[in-house]
Amino acid sequence: MSSSTIDSPAQPENAQPQGDQTPITEAEIFAAHEGGKLSVGVDRPLATKRDLSIAYTPGVAQVSRAIAADPALARTHTWASRLVAVVSDGTAVLGLGNIGPSASLPVMEGKSALFKTFADLDSIPIVLNTTDVDEIVETLVRIAPSFGAVNLEDISAPRCFELERRLIEALDMPVMHDDQHGTAVVALAALTNAAKVVGKDLASLKVVIAGAGAAGIAVAEILLTAGVSDVVLIDSKGTLHTGREDLEGMKAEFAERTNPRAVAGGIAHALEGADVFIGVSSSTVPEEDIARMAEGSIVFALSNPDPEVAPDVARRHAAVVATGRSDFPNQINNVLAFPGIFRGALDAGARRITPAMKLAAARAIAELAESSADGLSADYIVPSPLDPRVGPAVTEAVMRAAATAIVPGE
Amino acid sequence: MSSSTIDSPAQPENAQPQGDQTPITEAEIFAAHEGGKLSVGVDRPLATKRDLSIAYTPGVAQVSRAIAADPALARTHTWASRLVAVVSDGTAVLGLGNIGPSASLPVMEGKSALFKTFADLDSIPIVLNTTDVDEIVETLVRIAPSFGAVNLEDISAPRCFELERRLIEALDMPVMHDDQHGTAVVALAALTNAAKVVGKDLASLKVVIAGAGAAGIAVAEILLTAGVSDVVLIDSKGTLHTGREDLEGMKAEFAERTNPRAVAGGIAHALEGADVFIGVSSSTVPEEDIARMAEGSIVFALSNPDPEVAPDVARRHAAVVATGRSDFPNQINNVLAFPGIFRGALDAGARRITPAMKLAAARAIAELAESSADGLSADYIVPSPLDPRVGPAVTEAVMRAAATAIVPGE
Repeated sequence: MSSSTIDSPAQPENAQPQGDQTPITEAEIFAAHEGGKLSVGVDRPLATKRDLSIAYTPGVAQVSRAIAADPALARTHTWASRLVAVVSDGTAVLGLGNIGPSASLPVMEGKSALFKTFADLDSIPIVLNTTDVDEIVETLVRIAPSFGAVNLEDISAPRCFELERRLIEALDMPVMHDDQHGTAVVALAALTNAAKVVGKDLASLKVVIAGAGAAGIAVAEILLTAGVSDVVLIDSKGTLHTGREDLEGMKAEFAERTNPRAVAGGIAHALEGADVFIGVSSSTVPEEDIARMAEGSIVFALSNPDPEVAPDVARRHAAVVATGRSDFPNQINNVLAFPGIFRGALDAGARRITPAMKLAAARAIAELAESSADGLSADYIVPSPLDPRVGPAVTEAVMRAAATAIVPGE
Repeated sequence: MSSSTIDSPAQPENAQPQGDQTPITEAEIFAAHEGGKLSVGVDRPLATKRDLSIAYTPGVAQVSRAIAADPALARTHTWASRLVAVVSDGTAVLGLGNIGPSASLPVMEGKSALFKTFADLDSIPIVLNTTDVDEIVETLVRIAPSFGAVNLEDISAPRCFELERRLIEALDMPVMHDDQHGTAVVALAALTNAAKVVGKDLASLKVVIAGAGAAGIAVAEILLTAGVSDVVLIDSKGTLHTGREDLEGMKAEFAERTNPRAVAGGIAHALEGADVFIGVSSSTVPEEDIARMAEGSIVFALSNPDPEVAPDVARRHAAVVATGRSDFPNQINNVLAFPGIFRGALDAGARRITPAMKLAAARAIAELAESSADGLSADYIVPSPLDPRVGPAVTEAVMRAAATAIVPGE
């Protein structure tokens, strides 16, 4: 990536990195963000006095009075129940780190644009002048009657784990940190199909996850929920295992819940004979480590913009390779998951986003790719992020899961 | 107003209350509010991978990085600088009192619809689960990077005075409690023209204001600023004057600043020989009190839905009568003011809404009515709330006032 252009991803599905399109220039990017990217529209025009008298005074007083008498009517007669707050404190924005709330706002506006485009769901960015977990919880509780769900975004680990847990407890509405669970849902969908492509059983896979932050922990969690038992997490000091005394919080918890073979050491050792590598670490994995994986191995090198291993290099050894980038095959992009997850949860009136709803979302994404005309292949394990069928399919699956499940306390 | 219909205000300008339109039914009102009234739109479509790469990752990272390096770019490259937060705690909603945040939300959505319709200005309702002034200030400071101005709405007196003052201090953006200043601006515009209709000098008018809450205090304030010196405020215990020992806060302050003739007693006494009655009190004024006003008197009976005195009764004695209702001539509706005030302040990049900007808004509204084809008359002292020229004219006037004034600390 140069300072004035970025690789153009505007290429046909499954194309190789060398595209034939004009590179996107910095000037083009800044022009597209000028003035911001969102606007608030009025669903019914206010063209006449009669319109005004219905939508505003005196008519609106009847609606307000009715909600005061029966709070359940807020669900049907305000926009709150179909509105997502896209909330960030700007502490872990893309690959940029802690750049603060104002600098994170263009990303949150983009997120709102994705919600609208892929699930016809309204959302408002709320960026926070505080990074204190207590204060964030308190603030969102105070403004909670304004919206119906919370998408946490770009919040640094390990604060993100506590924040999400406490908001789920404090708010009577769906709350999800997308950097964790959106990524995890799409990774599970992709892994489900990759396992089919290589002819292996999902539950029996030996999986190594490089990165034990927000995404790594969430991917481990959903894989355990999906029945994968041999999962090894790796942080900068090596594999998580119960013999390590430097772990606390979620890392300590996952040292207990993962790594049944008690693999110690670094990535090179962990990858020996492994079936799956999932990188969410912004680190680098040498080709020789990938080469030591099992036959028919699967590599998801998800760091952006630079994958842990270049996909063409990984492909020399692995049977299936995926990245987070739009200019290689198999883009693991959480836009496949979050619009439909929130739309489904809101449409169902769900108070929580449960593990069952996340699994249902992953299954819906996987099935869409599998049922495509050409079927699955090493270069097609997930639908394109632009596939318009994905949002509705995920919505439908999540609604069904919400309706059939007794909502557990997670 | 019956329980199932309300008077239809869908009548030609200046028509009498008996309209020929179908009454608005409760069913029609509830249908119009179903699902809420707003939606968030995307200004540029996300149709291709290229669009996604510009609006979201990886392109958006360049914009975020630029804002992190130069915070001023948040003004030009996010929507915050053109976004108004419509903030309420639901404590003084229309005539309904303290009905809470969720029940106030339909009103705030309506307000957002008015912002969009009359000034093409984006806004988001933020309704609050707290009525504590400290907590409201703290909450808005924490979420302030999300928007560019605050319209306080339907917040009870006297808390609204302290809240507005403290937010103006705490936030580096325009803040205005519309129930105070929107009403005051339009009342001043109307009074300016009413004085012309009756051939009296504005500054020399003897004005009696019934109601010393949010609107009454703000009307008194703007009249003093506009040069009217003989203003008498009345609360439920009589006129505000320096001899009263039961007054505190803004009432005590305005007992000092108004009532130069030290009029004591009730409304009947205050109205003897008065030129102007402005009612913002939800109380009732008997016909005989109106009858004792000066020749060529002016009556603004602004309580909704029931004016302090019926306009046809007032008209037997007063030369000019206005109400807050859309089904009588001369509707004093703050929709004439707030969309253009906020749009003008935001477009000018103003950090405060100053007295000069409010006066400029009032003047612009008054001049629009005066310059209409038929000119001013007893039944036409303000433009119709639907007059599409008003928003742009107020915006322009407020921008000019913002640009020329050295912004004082108010």
